[in-house]
Amino acid sequence: MTTEEQDILSDFGNRLRKLRIEKGFSQEKFADLTQLDRTYVSGLERGKRNPSYLILLKIAKSLNISVKDLF
Amino acid sequence: MTTEEQDILSDFGNRLRKLRIEKGFSQEKFADLTQLDRTYVSGLERGKRNPSYLILLKIAKSLNISVKDLF
Repeated sequence: MTTEEQDILSDFGNRLRKLRIEKGFSQEKFADLTQLDRTYVSGLERGKRNPSYLILLKIAKSLNISVKDLF
Repeated sequence: MTTEEQDILSDFGNRLRKLRIEKGFSQEKFADLTQLDRTYVSGLERGKRNPSYLILLKIAKSLNISVKDLF
């Protein structure tokens, strides 16, 4: 993975954390809602994961936003 | 994968094919631009692949659109 790609995932992770907190969800609550492992959610928020399209859709659904608004 | 998920990927594939053709790219040209294997692009367009966020960004870049406009 390039540094640029790492930066992109870090930016996504920061945005996800911000959106999750705005909705008042703990990581654990959000992981439950999204049917993801809490360690995976933690990895996403730290920019350590490159989520698939279907995972992005699940995340958007749990946050009650459009997938477009994830970016 | 659920039927709903399969439908989501098929819809994405159809949209991708439409966007690629609008830009006048063959699958091969588009695969080259995006630095993806042509068989992978073919699989995406047939809804057989669940692309990662970084792949979605590469696709959007090759089509010269925002990732938001992929959806």
